[in-house]
Amino acid sequence: MLVLLDQTRLPVEEVELFCTDVPALVQAIRTLAVRGAPLLGLAGAYGVALAAARGYDVGQAADELAGARPTAVNLSYGVRRALAAYRTAVTGGADDTGAAAATLAEARALHAEDARASERMARNGLALLDELVPGGGYRVLTHCNTGALVSGGEGTALAVVLAAHRGGLLRRLWVDETRPLLQGARLTAYEAARAGVAHTLLPDGAAGSLFAAGEVDAVLIGADRIAADGSTANKVGSYPLAVLARYHNVPFVVVAPTTTIDLATPDGTAIEVEQRPAQEVTELTGPRPGPDREGATGIPVAPLGTPAYNPAFDVTPPELITAVVTETGVASPVTGSSIAALAARPGPVRAQP
Amino acid sequence: MLVLLDQTRLPVEEVELFCTDVPALVQAIRTLAVRGAPLLGLAGAYGVALAAARGYDVGQAADELAGARPTAVNLSYGVRRALAAYRTAVTGGADDTGAAAATLAEARALHAEDARASERMARNGLALLDELVPGGGYRVLTHCNTGALVSGGEGTALAVVLAAHRGGLLRRLWVDETRPLLQGARLTAYEAARAGVAHTLLPDGAAGSLFAAGEVDAVLIGADRIAADGSTANKVGSYPLAVLARYHNVPFVVVAPTTTIDLATPDGTAIEVEQRPAQEVTELTGPRPGPDREGATGIPVAPLGTPAYNPAFDVTPPELITAVVTETGVASPVTGSSIAALAARPGPVRAQP
Repeated sequence: MLVLLDQTRLPVEEVELFCTDVPALVQAIRTLAVRGAPLLGLAGAYGVALAAARGYDVGQAADELAGARPTAVNLSYGVRRALAAYRTAVTGGADDTGAAAATLAEARALHAEDARASERMARNGLALLDELVPGGGYRVLTHCNTGALVSGGEGTALAVVLAAHRGGLLRRLWVDETRPLLQGARLTAYEAARAGVAHTLLPDGAAGSLFAAGEVDAVLIGADRIAADGSTANKVGSYPLAVLARYHNVPFVVVAPTTTIDLATPDGTAIEVEQRPAQEVTELTGPRPGPDREGATGIPVAPLGTPAYNPAFDVTPPELITAVVTETGVASPVTGSSIAALAARPGPVRAQP
Repeated sequence: MLVLLDQTRLPVEEVELFCTDVPALVQAIRTLAVRGAPLLGLAGAYGVALAAARGYDVGQAADELAGARPTAVNLSYGVRRALAAYRTAVTGGADDTGAAAATLAEARALHAEDARASERMARNGLALLDELVPGGGYRVLTHCNTGALVSGGEGTALAVVLAAHRGGLLRRLWVDETRPLLQGARLTAYEAARAGVAHTLLPDGAAGSLFAAGEVDAVLIGADRIAADGSTANKVGSYPLAVLARYHNVPFVVVAPTTTIDLATPDGTAIEVEQRPAQEVTELTGPRPGPDREGATGIPVAPLGTPAYNPAFDVTPPELITAVVTETGVASPVTGSSIAALAARPGPVRAQP
């Protein structure tokens, strides 16, 4: 059984979601009860381990899990890692129990790697900030949620922010609310408050006013997939921030583990962007009272039947990204070769698949 | 008594709000039950007429009305026009009834002028679109609400859109939902649906994806105040669209009556931007069930006490604005002299104050 913190019910309630089988986990992934690139990798790996432990068809479970959300590459990475461990064990003559144990061990290894990767990303990101914005007193703008909720460690972009905070270098964290699902308001503000970080929430459209007023020193975001050329898919609303940052000469930094780099995706046009239901836009759904988001009805805010354009992600081209920070180092400028170098570098925390 | 359509309850209910005195009207303006630049001018003028009819201190009522929202220049313009009519009547020897009648006549004249101005803006805007995007099939992005709900006529930017629609020239209206108060989702989608306009709603942060995909031919927005240099204050989220439009070489057009031009405000830095309550961001409030917005409690979406940055407007500098369309003509490029020329031109619908 896999126990998850149901992120759709934060910050109102801290509720655990018990997934006893793979379909329940797939549902949790689809409804964003579990979300965030690194965590999706862990969920995928543990999901395969769950299938092995329960005696399901492990290959089929892996397919279902990997397909639950199309854009996040970490999900399929975690699934692949766990599936490979399972197959190696089976090929090596392990019985069902042994194969399940090997799969679980691989998921746990990924979990531990992820925590170490967070620490390294924080260290690398902090060094970069020191170069880009000398003297500290950082006012950092972030989008969506990239903290401990999405990671075995402290996350990606938010891990850098927390490290800056602990070092006395952070003046303020500006938190985009991140419509339509409000991960910034619900999750990042929650994590910032728990960590004692000075933070201020804003509607996504108000970020422009902050840039114009000179109130943003750097933008730090996570990533759901980084293509071979450095094009970065992240939560919708990231690309407008990149354009604003460029217009105002503010550094725009992507923080992600190397597992987010997908060299098989050549560029931004090759990234499949998930389209999500219109209801996420046409109805306001707060942290929901029941376990089944899809059954929940929100407060309608648009006339019945209003069509909505609701891509989950957007793609920022490499020329708008100041740097990509991973656990293995920093790519800046962001080019095909600097990204390839990051992905190839044998980081102390990167397992060799 | 002044009867208003309570815009905070759209699109769920069409409810009339009865203002029998000036404080009720001030409250309706503050809570955005009545909103939108041209309509605020009418509300201000009718409010002064109400004060005169009821025998209140007209000067004091005018001050209270004009101060209800600081950024919208039309509000104080309407108040000033009605107050001037009242004072002229009193100076001319009119009794209370006569002065009240003169004030009401002036408010009605402003109302009729506003309707005619809408028609002229639509005609001028359509001619401009024909130059900027030859061949029709316009895909127009708009922000906030600028239609019949805010005007004695069909509004400002939306009047142009509706004229394009009637002329068979509009392919699609992209409607920014316009957080935090969702005027796009609640009001523009409602007006578009009623007019049979092909429209699609989107989270504000998804506009970047539309620009990147080449899906936007022009941005049309309204204005709450246009400074002498052409700097335009409009609903927060407008400035990021201007930056995106520039980055993607898409025309960014402001449509507003000349009464929105404030030559006494030299530039963007001189525009006071109203800051609104954090609760608008930290709580989701749908179209509300009761008449008193400030008493309404929403669904919390951020931890209790989360501080929020919630400016009602942002300011777009003239160099990012392709054109300003008024009832008297089009300023393009937008400069101090082209704006001054627009404001000075004796439009057929402009009353001489």
